[in-house]
Amino acid sequence: MLDRVLKQIDDDLSASLERLFRLLRIESISTDPACRDSVRAAAEWLAGELSDLGFDASVRRTDGHPMVVAHDDSAKSGPHFLFYGHYDVQPVDPLGDWTSPPFEPRIDIVNGVKRIVGRGASDDKGQLMTFVEACRAWKTAAGALPAKVSILFEGEEESGSPSLVPFLRAHADELRADVALVCDTNMWNRERAAITIMLRGLVGEEVIVTAADRDLHSGLFGGAARNPIHALVDILGRLHDEQGRVTLPGFYDGVHELPAEVRAIWDTLGFNAGDFLGSVGLSVPAGEAGRTVLEQIWARPTCEINGVIGGYTGDGFKTVIPAKASAKLSFRLVGDQDPQHLRESLRGFVRQHLPADCRVEFVDHGGSPAMRLPHDGDHLARVRAALTDEWGTEPALVGSGGSIPVVGDLKRILGMDSLMIGFALEDDRIHSPNEKYELSSFHGGIRSWARILAALSA
Amino acid sequence: MLDRVLKQIDDDLSASLERLFRLLRIESISTDPACRDSVRAAAEWLAGELSDLGFDASVRRTDGHPMVVAHDDSAKSGPHFLFYGHYDVQPVDPLGDWTSPPFEPRIDIVNGVKRIVGRGASDDKGQLMTFVEACRAWKTAAGALPAKVSILFEGEEESGSPSLVPFLRAHADELRADVALVCDTNMWNRERAAITIMLRGLVGEEVIVTAADRDLHSGLFGGAARNPIHALVDILGRLHDEQGRVTLPGFYDGVHELPAEVRAIWDTLGFNAGDFLGSVGLSVPAGEAGRTVLEQIWARPTCEINGVIGGYTGDGFKTVIPAKASAKLSFRLVGDQDPQHLRESLRGFVRQHLPADCRVEFVDHGGSPAMRLPHDGDHLARVRAALTDEWGTEPALVGSGGSIPVVGDLKRILGMDSLMIGFALEDDRIHSPNEKYELSSFHGGIRSWARILAALSA
Repeated sequence: MLDRVLKQIDDDLSASLERLFRLLRIESISTDPACRDSVRAAAEWLAGELSDLGFDASVRRTDGHPMVVAHDDSAKSGPHFLFYGHYDVQPVDPLGDWTSPPFEPRIDIVNGVKRIVGRGASDDKGQLMTFVEACRAWKTAAGALPAKVSILFEGEEESGSPSLVPFLRAHADELRADVALVCDTNMWNRERAAITIMLRGLVGEEVIVTAADRDLHSGLFGGAARNPIHALVDILGRLHDEQGRVTLPGFYDGVHELPAEVRAIWDTLGFNAGDFLGSVGLSVPAGEAGRTVLEQIWARPTCEINGVIGGYTGDGFKTVIPAKASAKLSFRLVGDQDPQHLRESLRGFVRQHLPADCRVEFVDHGGSPAMRLPHDGDHLARVRAALTDEWGTEPALVGSGGSIPVVGDLKRILGMDSLMIGFALEDDRIHSPNEKYELSSFHGGIRSWARILAALSA
Repeated sequence: MLDRVLKQIDDDLSASLERLFRLLRIESISTDPACRDSVRAAAEWLAGELSDLGFDASVRRTDGHPMVVAHDDSAKSGPHFLFYGHYDVQPVDPLGDWTSPPFEPRIDIVNGVKRIVGRGASDDKGQLMTFVEACRAWKTAAGALPAKVSILFEGEEESGSPSLVPFLRAHADELRADVALVCDTNMWNRERAAITIMLRGLVGEEVIVTAADRDLHSGLFGGAARNPIHALVDILGRLHDEQGRVTLPGFYDGVHELPAEVRAIWDTLGFNAGDFLGSVGLSVPAGEAGRTVLEQIWARPTCEINGVIGGYTGDGFKTVIPAKASAKLSFRLVGDQDPQHLRESLRGFVRQHLPADCRVEFVDHGGSPAMRLPHDGDHLARVRAALTDEWGTEPALVGSGGSIPVVGDLKRILGMDSLMIGFALEDDRIHSPNEKYELSSFHGGIRSWARILAALSA
């Protein structure tokens, strides 16, 4: 049966591509109020496609852009999967840098490689359509899906997903499934698929230190007046020790060593730390001493100062002792680190080191814990086998230093683990002009999902 | 003879005031290109007044605004003094905050105190006119000045004095005198004159740290990539020790303890550290432990961070590892501290603590050494006596935390010490809307200079 489904995919590829193009032509920029109707049109187009495929599909209202929800329970038994993708896209500026209009998708051939070029080609319309087209092929070739499938397409991912959590809460029973399939990540490279099994969490916090009630002249007051920049840099400078470890009390609580099997897999990835750092003009890993770069970026927590400002920062010079200085910090979390605990630890640390005459104010910029998929679970084993069959090589099990908030939300609200499988490539230029999705990603992605559905249902 | 001069001053006060008003009406804002002709008009008006008084006065061209130079050597013997003042003024914005037009001077009476209100009333037209009117009174009442006097009025003080050094160099022989009289400082309070005997020097330096060749995503690179904000705050945080002392090697070379006599005078000033700090919302002296606030602001060197910036500093949050972070630092210098030595010490310190993959660039924002007048010199003793006679109380011998560059230039280029005597008050709102100069400053200032000329010539 799977062979027939795969043949159907191959035979139908140009029609699949034409359907993707139709979706790509809809200007569904979620952050642009002028695109409000277009965002809705994209949702309606998707719901229509899914209805045509026999899904019970509908466009659901939220306080922001709508959700698309669809269910197919033609498979009367077996597991139940929830597929997640997002149909909204990033803004297109700077428009002048596009070599063709962002919402007029086309096929480009570079060094013999066919690429789908257009806004959303990769992130995330191209990716979500790999799953829709896989379902279409199953329906066409086999008459039904091999498992019960629900779909959730979001229209606000690029604008911070304000409606997602309330929507998941309000429709928990409807959306809950055995496992979630999330298609918003990369392949390891063009030839090797990847399953993301670890996502770092994130805590954002702003620290604002004030001292005098106005800016002061450093000649008249310098030497006697507290300078809040001094107070701030002194505290920020204490956040790491000489070994690159974060000094906040309790910071490493809940951080686990990498399982040996995962470490062994990472050793096979052929990751070149020198190339990775060299690609951005660096050469020496800056994180914790004694850790590989892959560990540093995927499996170790961080504390980064993302911004700092205080006093006079224009051209020339001004001898001011400012009234205020501030910094934006973020932590990347791993394992079982608790976002709220880290936030409190930072606040306590700042207060503890704050000198006389300074006041501090904190702004909470949100937080989410790290996510891990059991690396030895049954679902994972099945997906690994399916992807090995499709790509001819074992998929990479990777971490991701960044966050995919929906994965945490699905875990927290619906109690579901997510299998993060995507077919984008590092150089897809998502969020940038001339975004592309390689035809091999699209075609191989559809085939991969067809195989994964079979494998998970067997 | 002095009594006749003083009576002449008292009798002529309203005419003196009218002359000051004429000067105040000229919009000599040196930083405003639209005021170019007005600045020149102010110079010409002053040269005309001085010519009328019998000075050999002229307006001298520079690459910027003109200088006024005048000489009176009717006193055939005795010492020779060079008086310095500046006839340019600060811009007037925000204009809406003025209660009357800034270039329409008027007398205001607040709590029974008569105040001259207008731009430049205090800084520095009112101050320089105290000396001109003192000369007029000597000429009128005694027929001649008691000493040889030269005058230098600058028109670029409020725009950084770009022409001053070249002008002093080109006219060194013409301008060199036994001592300079500089009238651009404050009284201790309305009842007590002040002589500024110490001026801190200043070194300005910008430190720019770069790491990666572009801004990086802190999820993808965080933990492995060098963050230049971390490098910068780590270094800046090391500049002071727990006692508030600056840690740069050799920083305190050339810093001397306060002479006992000066310390004794400062003890008589009734300076209230709590009020001083409390006026700007502070309460605890932030500088070197074990030093009084007056020492901290007048007699001790400082290292201040005047500005710092790096990464994302807008609203909300952005998880960026920036390519660059920078800080503007200034040092206030005392005693014999060498500006260039301190700059090199800072640069060496930064380089020494710079981690791998960071580069640093420095921008020199200028420097000048501290200035000191021998507190036991003959000129100072004579001026102290003259001011005591005028104000009925011993003048305060004070330091100034800020810099008056001309004093350093006169020392370096002409080898002259400066007696800094001014009659402005702390609350004169110089550089701000509704600048004022109290009538008692103007009248007492004229009388003071009349006495000082007598005392220095006796």
